[in-house]
Amino acid sequence: MRHVISILMENESGALSRVVGLFSARGYNIDSLSVNVTDDKTLSRLTLTTQGDERMIEQILKQLNKLIEVVKVCDLNESRFTERELILIKIRTTAKDRKEFLELIQIYRGNVVDVTERTLTAEITGTSDKVDSFIGLIGQTSILEIVRTGAIGLGRGERTMKV
Amino acid sequence: MRHVISILMENESGALSRVVGLFSARGYNIDSLSVNVTDDKTLSRLTLTTQGDERMIEQILKQLNKLIEVVKVCDLNESRFTERELILIKIRTTAKDRKEFLELIQIYRGNVVDVTERTLTAEITGTSDKVDSFIGLIGQTSILEIVRTGAIGLGRGERTMKV
Repeated sequence: MRHVISILMENESGALSRVVGLFSARGYNIDSLSVNVTDDKTLSRLTLTTQGDERMIEQILKQLNKLIEVVKVCDLNESRFTERELILIKIRTTAKDRKEFLELIQIYRGNVVDVTERTLTAEITGTSDKVDSFIGLIGQTSILEIVRTGAIGLGRGERTMKV
Repeated sequence: MRHVISILMENESGALSRVVGLFSARGYNIDSLSVNVTDDKTLSRLTLTTQGDERMIEQILKQLNKLIEVVKVCDLNESRFTERELILIKIRTTAKDRKEFLELIQIYRGNVVDVTERTLTAEITGTSDKVDSFIGLIGQTSILEIVRTGAIGLGRGERTMKV
């Protein structure tokens, strides 16, 4: 099962390396990862997605909690949460098919961020599933380039991870 | 100077660890990082932001190119590029100030993704500067929780990183 794990950790060189190293040393795969500073500049928040059964996820959470730079760990799947990721996609277009792509971008509530005679670059946000379905509709032959952030998430309602 | 570095690499456990380990071993800081799969499932694309002078960035690029899992490295700052990041932010609200926050979210072209009597959760995309300015306007005391992806970027026009 896919899990979205959120980690609050010290904003210092080495913390990211320790977290990522823990996964690779144990052969746990990271499907996507995003890390950035929070409103408290001494803390970073890292979100990663991984696949695993309950026992494996429990092991991962236990090992992460042991890291000295880690302040708090949370498996977002334990409760309801909002998930989003962002994609930038450059599409090969002609005068003929441009309208069709613009309509798709509009349906997915995306924005065009750059355009040339032969290309169209758009940003789309949504769950990983939504982004996957958009990529599928554009089609491999029209995609010139893709870059997507790792998924991020916040618990629904008033629940927070604040320490 | 702030640099946005884009890395196309093999989608396998260990590649991410090697890239991140290179930075921490040399004491280079990573300000933000995003990694996810591309349209080619055998490749991941990693984007990171770091601070450094020309000589340091040149060193980093050289070292990254030496890693066997790395297919291509690009310093996006070398040419014009589009940069975006995504933030989820949970705001403490009352019946009195909710409208004010909704207006700010609208100005920044964000979307409300969750709401309770006492909270409002929104998604905003933009450059790091735009996201920073939004956070500044919301104000520390009203922020319950923040999670932001690392910045991602694509070269403008028809330039791609495809191999």
